[in-house]
Amino acid sequence: MNDRIKSREKAIFEAGIKLGALYHQFIGSPVSPESADSLERAIEESIRNQPYVESISVRIDRNHLKENLNSFGYTELTGLMLEVELAVKVDETRIHAGMKPVDGYPLMSLL
Amino acid sequence: MNDRIKSREKAIFEAGIKLGALYHQFIGSPVSPESADSLERAIEESIRNQPYVESISVRIDRNHLKENLNSFGYTELTGLMLEVELAVKVDETRIHAGMKPVDGYPLMSLL
Amino acid sequence: MNDRIKSREKAIFEAGIKLGALYHQFIGSPVSPESADSLERAIEESIRNQPYVESISVRIDRNHLKENLNSFGYTELTGLMLEVELAVKVDETRIHAGMKPVDGYPLMSLL
Amino acid sequence: MNDRIKSREKAIFEAGIKLGALYHQFIGSPVSPESADSLERAIEESIRNQPYVESISVRIDRNHLKENLNSFGYTELTGLMLEVELAVKVDETRIHAGMKPVDGYPLMSLL
Repeated sequence: MNDRIKSREKAIFEAGIKLGALYHQFIGSPVSPESADSLERAIEESIRNQPYVESISVRIDRNHLKENLNSFGYTELTGLMLEVELAVKVDETRIHAGMKPVDGYPLMSLL
Repeated sequence: MNDRIKSREKAIFEAGIKLGALYHQFIGSPVSPESADSLERAIEESIRNQPYVESISVRIDRNHLKENLNSFGYTELTGLMLEVELAVKVDETRIHAGMKPVDGYPLMSLL
Repeated sequence: MNDRIKSREKAIFEAGIKLGALYHQFIGSPVSPESADSLERAIEESIRNQPYVESISVRIDRNHLKENLNSFGYTELTGLMLEVELAVKVDETRIHAGMKPVDGYPLMSLL
Repeated sequence: MNDRIKSREKAIFEAGIKLGALYHQFIGSPVSPESADSLERAIEESIRNQPYVESISVRIDRNHLKENLNSFGYTELTGLMLEVELAVKVDETRIHAGMKPVDGYPLMSLL
């Protein structure tokens, strides 16, 4: 395999790791309209620590969030509230990947 | 059981729930000296959403954090890095509880 | 405070910790009708390791599980699928606590 | 891009997702020599539910586990205790990936 393909495949693998990690680390966190900002920032800054992450943006869908508030005024972060985009770079090869809800499933994909 | 004892016991139970929740939700999060602030704020704001929480402060021990950085410049949040204090209020009864490392164990206790 | 009240309050606090821990550790785990048994056993055996736990039973509601399967034939463990009962013992004082869905909220309570 | 490369890249991406998911879902679980078996089985059966997973084996290093027991006789699952191998299949293309400790870091890699 030539080096360019090797770098590209490693970047794709690493992008998958980051999305799986992000999802299963933070899903279940108590969240409300008031606290969604700080959770978005913390997820971004946390995952950006991981190797090969060049940039990441995390958005919690406020409409979906508000529709799911319990009687105490909060809910738990679910995959269907999350929109994520990230760029991973290995050597000189950059990969874009992300997740967003598609047909009621939190789909992760290469962009 | 009189109402005051009942409120006190409920507050103690709720304080335990919050500490167990916080610990097992956020332990394992990638964290570095640069991202520790945003993780502290997000944990505080997340747990403050839960019922009966009056106040909470979360501190990540920067020395312990720096001693545990891996070759990529980050580590994972562990119980031994965490110092937490929270106040829980049920009816008119307020309970203080917290966690901090004692003899190498992340001890949760009523204060 | 006399010793008996002290033991009782500590048992109540510890029961809360266990329920909060269990919830936020395992919520989000991929689960299907085929894998629910092994997840129930693993949660029970995992939490039974924690201090003061005398016994614990974890049941994943199979009907709720089946109603929530995605197109890949699985779903994620949520609080609304969980029924938990545990006994915590401190000195000679035993406390029973549990969680189950009440009005669409995964309620934790002293039993 | 031809179909074979596309399938291979998707399989690599999915393998990364599974390893990141497994890690951040189960790290932190209380575990002891007595409960390690049930946790291994539950992790395997849980992750096998996810799309494209053909097979998976999870091993918790008993020596590492025993060296890290706390005074209550248990510890928490960490990345350095985990050895995972999995096969992911997309269309007719199969990828092998895994994780194990390398130089004190829980390294995930294509096999």
